[in-house]
Amino acid sequence: MDRRKFLKGSVLLSGLLSLSPTELWSSTKRVTSPGAGKAKNIIFMVSDGMSLGTLSMADLYSRNILGKESRWLNLYHEKTVSRALMDTASASSIVTDSAAASSAFGGGIRVQNGVLNIGANGENHIPIWQKYKKAGKKVGCVTSVTITHATPAGFCVNSTKRNAEPQIAEMYAELGIDILMGGGDEFFNPLKREDKKDLYSVYKKKNYQIMKNGIDLKTIQKGNKILGIFNTGALPYSIDRTHLKELQNTPTLAEMADAAIDQMKDHPEGFVLQIEGGKVDWAAHANDIAALIHDQLAFDEAVKTAIDFAEKDGNTLVIITTDHGNANPGIIYGTDATKNFNSISNYHYTNEYILNKIHKDHSAKDIKDWIYEGHKLILNDDEAKHLQSFYNGLEKEEGLYNYKKLPFKLYSEIQKSRNSVGWISMDHSGDYVEATAYGPGSQLLKPYIKNMDLHYLMLEACPL
Amino acid sequence: MDRRKFLKGSVLLSGLLSLSPTELWSSTKRVTSPGAGKAKNIIFMVSDGMSLGTLSMADLYSRNILGKESRWLNLYHEKTVSRALMDTASASSIVTDSAAASSAFGGGIRVQNGVLNIGANGENHIPIWQKYKKAGKKVGCVTSVTITHATPAGFCVNSTKRNAEPQIAEMYAELGIDILMGGGDEFFNPLKREDKKDLYSVYKKKNYQIMKNGIDLKTIQKGNKILGIFNTGALPYSIDRTHLKELQNTPTLAEMADAAIDQMKDHPEGFVLQIEGGKVDWAAHANDIAALIHDQLAFDEAVKTAIDFAEKDGNTLVIITTDHGNANPGIIYGTDATKNFNSISNYHYTNEYILNKIHKDHSAKDIKDWIYEGHKLILNDDEAKHLQSFYNGLEKEEGLYNYKKLPFKLYSEIQKSRNSVGWISMDHSGDYVEATAYGPGSQLLKPYIKNMDLHYLMLEACPL
Repeated sequence: MDRRKFLKGSVLLSGLLSLSPTELWSSTKRVTSPGAGKAKNIIFMVSDGMSLGTLSMADLYSRNILGKESRWLNLYHEKTVSRALMDTASASSIVTDSAAASSAFGGGIRVQNGVLNIGANGENHIPIWQKYKKAGKKVGCVTSVTITHATPAGFCVNSTKRNAEPQIAEMYAELGIDILMGGGDEFFNPLKREDKKDLYSVYKKKNYQIMKNGIDLKTIQKGNKILGIFNTGALPYSIDRTHLKELQNTPTLAEMADAAIDQMKDHPEGFVLQIEGGKVDWAAHANDIAALIHDQLAFDEAVKTAIDFAEKDGNTLVIITTDHGNANPGIIYGTDATKNFNSISNYHYTNEYILNKIHKDHSAKDIKDWIYEGHKLILNDDEAKHLQSFYNGLEKEEGLYNYKKLPFKLYSEIQKSRNSVGWISMDHSGDYVEATAYGPGSQLLKPYIKNMDLHYLMLEACPL
Repeated sequence: MDRRKFLKGSVLLSGLLSLSPTELWSSTKRVTSPGAGKAKNIIFMVSDGMSLGTLSMADLYSRNILGKESRWLNLYHEKTVSRALMDTASASSIVTDSAAASSAFGGGIRVQNGVLNIGANGENHIPIWQKYKKAGKKVGCVTSVTITHATPAGFCVNSTKRNAEPQIAEMYAELGIDILMGGGDEFFNPLKREDKKDLYSVYKKKNYQIMKNGIDLKTIQKGNKILGIFNTGALPYSIDRTHLKELQNTPTLAEMADAAIDQMKDHPEGFVLQIEGGKVDWAAHANDIAALIHDQLAFDEAVKTAIDFAEKDGNTLVIITTDHGNANPGIIYGTDATKNFNSISNYHYTNEYILNKIHKDHSAKDIKDWIYEGHKLILNDDEAKHLQSFYNGLEKEEGLYNYKKLPFKLYSEIQKSRNSVGWISMDHSGDYVEATAYGPGSQLLKPYIKNMDLHYLMLEACPL
C-alpha cells in the first residue's frame, strides 16, 4: 500500500505523467511474472456445492453442445493459474454446510455447521470483508440466491444462526457493504418482513441506490453504494430464465458481476468482491440436471467477466472455487452414454418448473404430454402414474429447498434411464474440491489446502 | 541418451571416477530444478477407476483412522509435483472403459471402448512399452488384477478384443516384456487354459524366472526376466488379505512394485514400469467401501515405494493417475457423517467375502450374526430377510466382476444408512480425474489434458 501511495503522491506533485495512478501502478506490476507480486483487488468466486462431476459435465456439455470449452477449464490451457485440491471439512463434520465453509474462507477458522464466524467458545472471528472495508477498500457480494444467504454472509457478518437472514439484512446496512446484489426481497420489504421494518428505507437513508430489476442495473450511478434485490427468494435458474420471458427482467450472475466490478474498479484503495453461483447447490440438492449444468455455465460466464477484467487490470487476484461437493453427479458408462448425456440439450426448463406445473387434476396422459413438451422425454404409463401419486397425496418428498414437496428424486431417477446421469444423494458430499487462482498472489496457492487456508492466502496476497 | 552414452564412455576410458555411470548421470541432473530435464526411467501408476471421491475418502480415512496423510496428497505438501485435470473419454464414448483408456496412454490415440490400440480403420498403434523396449529399456507391468487385463495390456499389445486374455498372455512372451506380475493363472496354466497350452513352459524357455507366491518374490535373481502369477483371477482385496491368513502368501502391490523396480533399476539404458491398482475399480463396481478404501491405500503404499525410489534416483519420472472415475462415491452430509464414515474401520472384510459366505440354508438370524461379526453392523429383520431372498433365488443381481451374483447393491444400500457413503451407480463415470507428475519431465504436465496427452508427455520427457 505504501508504494502505491508514494507513486500517487509523486504523480500528483510532478504533474508530468498522463497515466492515472492506477495505470502507473498497474504497468509497474506487469513487468513481474504472472502470479507474483501483491494484489490490489480480490474477486472470490464460489460455485456453491460444485462436485467435480458438475464442473466436468458443464465443460463436456459446453464442448459437445455449445462448441466451446468452459472458461474455467480454458483458463488452464493458458497455463497462467495455480490449482489446488481443497479439503472442505468444518469444525463439526467432514461434510460441511455453506455457513461453516464460508466462515472458513471468511473468518480463517473452521466453525460448527450452521454458524457464521462464531467459534467454539462463542467468540467472534472478524469476517474478511470487514477487515478490507476497514482498510479502505470497497467490498461487495453478488449471488444468484438470497444476498443474506450463508456464502455472502460468511464474508461479512457474525451470527450464531445462518438462518437469521432478516437480521443479516440489517447488519449489511450497518456495516455499509458497498455492493449487495441477489435475491431476498422478503428480508428487506416491510410487507414481507415479520417485524414490518422497511429496510429499503434504511438503505436509502444510508445513500444506497436501490435496484429491483435488470433495467435498474443500467442506471447505476458511479460512486453510489448499491442494494440490488431482484427477486423474492433466490433468482431464477438460468435455464428457466432463458426460456421464460417473465423471468428475463432479472439479471444474470455475469451481469451482476460486471456491474459490481465496474462500480468499484476505480476506487483508489481497491476492492474485494465475492461472486456466488448459489443455485448450483440448489440444483444439486434437487438432482436437477438442466438446472445444474446451466447454472454452472452461468457461473462460468461470470468467470469470464472476472478474468477479462483481471487480465486488463493486472492488479486483481481471482480465486475460483466451491465450498463443498454436492450429490457427486456423473455420467454413467453405457453404450449410449454420449447420446444420452447430449439429450439434456432438449431440456428447456428445470425439473422444478416442470414438476411445479403439474396439479392433482392432471391425468397420467397430461403428465406424459407435458414432460414431452418440456424435456422431450417419453414416459411410460407406470412412470407417469408414479409421478401422479405425488400430486394425489399418496406419496411425498421432503428435502432442502424443496419448498413445494415436488417429486424431484423420482423424476431424476426417471431421467437417469434416459440421460445416463446419476447422483449419490440429495445433499452435500465430503469430496475434496477444485480451487484455482489467477493473478498477483496466485503463486501462494499450494496444491493441497484446507478451506481456511484461502483466508490467509487472501490476506498475504492483498495485505490490509 | 547421447549425453549419457558420452559420459559412460568417458568414465570407462578415463578410469578415474569411482561413481557408476548411472550415479554420475544422476548427480549431473540434480543441479537442475525439480521437474526440469529428461528422465531415464518412467513409473506410470494407475489407480484404476478412481473417482475423486475415492482419493478423498482414502485420504480422510488415513488421516482419521491411521493418523497420517496419504502419500499421494502428502506429496502435494512437498510442492514438487505438477497436477492436471484429465478428460478420460474414448473414441466411442464420453465414458471410457479401461481398454480404450490404457490405449490412449499407451498408443497415443483414442480408440473404441473394448479395443487395445487398434484404430478406427483397423490400424495398429504401437504400444509405448514396445517402443521403449526397442530403444533398449527394460519394460514391466505389475497389477493387482490379472496381468493380461486391459490396463497392462494397453501398454504392451494390440488386440481387437480386451477379453482375449489367453492370447495376450502369449503375446507378452513373444514381446519379452521383462517384468510381469499380478494374477491370471488361468491364462498361463495348461490345466486351466482351453487350448491346454503350457505358457509357464513357454516363458521358462525364454529364460523367465517363474514366481507363484510372496515367498518366491524373495528369490528373484538379478538379471532375470520375471513372470509372477500369484493367483487365479485377480489378487485378493487388501482388507481381506490383512485379515485372512490364507491370502497372505500373495504379495501386496507395493511389494510387487518394489521387486520390479529393484530388478530393473540398474539397467544401463533405464526402465519403464506400469503399476496398476486394478481392484480399486472392481471395488467401485461392487460398491464395496472397505474394499475400495483399503485397495486405494494399498495403491498409496505403492506410490510411496515409487516416490522413495524416484527421490533417491533423480532420473525417474513418476506419473500417478487413474484411467476414469467409477461410481463417484462420496460421504453424504448429516449430523453423524464423521462418526458414520469412521465406522468403516470396523469392517474387517470386503462385502464380497461377507456375502460370499452366506448360503441358502442360513436363517435371517444367522445372516445378522455373521454381518455383525464381520462389519459390526446391526441389521434389522427386514434387511436380513431381504438379503436372504437373494440366496433363496427370489431375487438376483448381475454386474461386472460379480461372478457369483452376490447382492452387492442391496448390501451397500444397507451400509449407506450406517456409513453415510453413497454411489451413483456400479459403473464407470465420465468425470475428469486427477493426474500427478513427479521428477524430470513433470514440468511438461499442463493443468488440463486429455488422456492421450500423457503418451506424448512420456515420449518427450523420456525420449526414445
